[in-house]
Amino acid sequence: MNLLLLQSSQINGTEATVTGRQLEHLNSVHQIDEGASVRVGQVNGLMGNGLIKSINTERAVLDINLDTPAPAPIPLKLIMAMPRPKMLRRCLQSISSLGVKEIYLINSKRVEKSFWQTPFLSDEAIQNELILGLEQSRDTILPKFYLRKLFKPFVEDELGDLIKNTKALVAHPSGTNNCPINIQKPTTLVVGPEGGFIPYEIEKLKEVGVEAVTIGPRILRVESAVPALISRLFPG
Amino acid sequence: MNLLLLQSSQINGTEATVTGRQLEHLNSVHQIDEGASVRVGQVNGLMGNGLIKSINTERAVLDINLDTPAPAPIPLKLIMAMPRPKMLRRCLQSISSLGVKEIYLINSKRVEKSFWQTPFLSDEAIQNELILGLEQSRDTILPKFYLRKLFKPFVEDELGDLIKNTKALVAHPSGTNNCPINIQKPTTLVVGPEGGFIPYEIEKLKEVGVEAVTIGPRILRVESAVPALISRLFPG
Repeated sequence: MNLLLLQSSQINGTEATVTGRQLEHLNSVHQIDEGASVRVGQVNGLMGNGLIKSINTERAVLDINLDTPAPAPIPLKLIMAMPRPKMLRRCLQSISSLGVKEIYLINSKRVEKSFWQTPFLSDEAIQNELILGLEQSRDTILPKFYLRKLFKPFVEDELGDLIKNTKALVAHPSGTNNCPINIQKPTTLVVGPEGGFIPYEIEKLKEVGVEAVTIGPRILRVESAVPALISRLFPG
Repeated sequence: MNLLLLQSSQINGTEATVTGRQLEHLNSVHQIDEGASVRVGQVNGLMGNGLIKSINTERAVLDINLDTPAPAPIPLKLIMAMPRPKMLRRCLQSISSLGVKEIYLINSKRVEKSFWQTPFLSDEAIQNELILGLEQSRDTILPKFYLRKLFKPFVEDELGDLIKNTKALVAHPSGTNNCPINIQKPTTLVVGPEGGFIPYEIEKLKEVGVEAVTIGPRILRVESAVPALISRLFPG
């Protein structure tokens, strides 16, 4: 936790109250005492410092001063096939920490149906992972998150509008062009499931204007592929 | 498993025998039958195809034809502070899948001493993770792996020689220069522990000629930082 990210419900004027997971972290990992200063931020707001006025096992009270804007978002819409649940949580944290602010989780032929049954897809569980990513990276802007459980309607009815005024790419081993480097303009990136999109899906994506690109001869797991792709497109 | 990676002990002329983990994977995940063709490779050798001559729950026998070289290695020496054990295994797989062929795992003030007690540091455990990474990415060249449990002697006595004729970088939030993009020349990259190297350690690294560089305002976990850094240096 490189930033203590506060919900507006935790803030009253310049005072913030911390309980639960965040309090436990302050007590156990950071071993914070009264008078210590920690980095804080408000969800979708500014960042700054918090002075610990009191702390025990029940709650911490901080005097906060928020004056610094969050880092600039990465201008990327990320559309990702649903990964297996144990990978989903890590991926969401990682994507959130990388500065992506718009995430679509979609279906694909090679996504096992059982993946959609995971409790990690509840609104609260998703938000928790996204917040952990922001706390890791020191950011406050919560990504927007969308579930699209049907591939064809999503691509046919929605994707065309989504990719308007963006460079639209799908990372695919059969892509003949290399993925661009340091693109620095609004981009939509589609990432397939383990085993890749099937040829029909790639064709559907191409029909609406998404270009298949490769990032080299090696096939990466989604948890490595996503940071590699984002870092290549937006080296910052 | 995008490649069935065979040890030379499994190969006799053009015939290969598969048991254990790899057999289980062929049977359960790929549901391979006699007559099917799978991608195979030999550790530190060529890649090609294998025709399944027989398969049951005891063993599979393949007729193999190896004719394709492995993808070119990434000219990078990666020096990484020991991560927490549950992250270590994922990191080794990921690094191996990214095409890195020389990995040093080093100590740092912020590495918990208990991390070094993990059974995942046995030669066999390390090699297993590296092979899983190669099977993921379709590569055959096993990375060289070194443990260095003392920071100061490693930096003072060994690092100077290691970085000779390479661009030597340490990724650090306080780095004033941006990490270079698309460098395409031999590079040594040093990556710190959770919480970062302490100032003394950064000074020691600088003394032998390692430059501190930043990859942007966000602090990434090592499992996202390493693919992001490698992809930025060597977009392929």
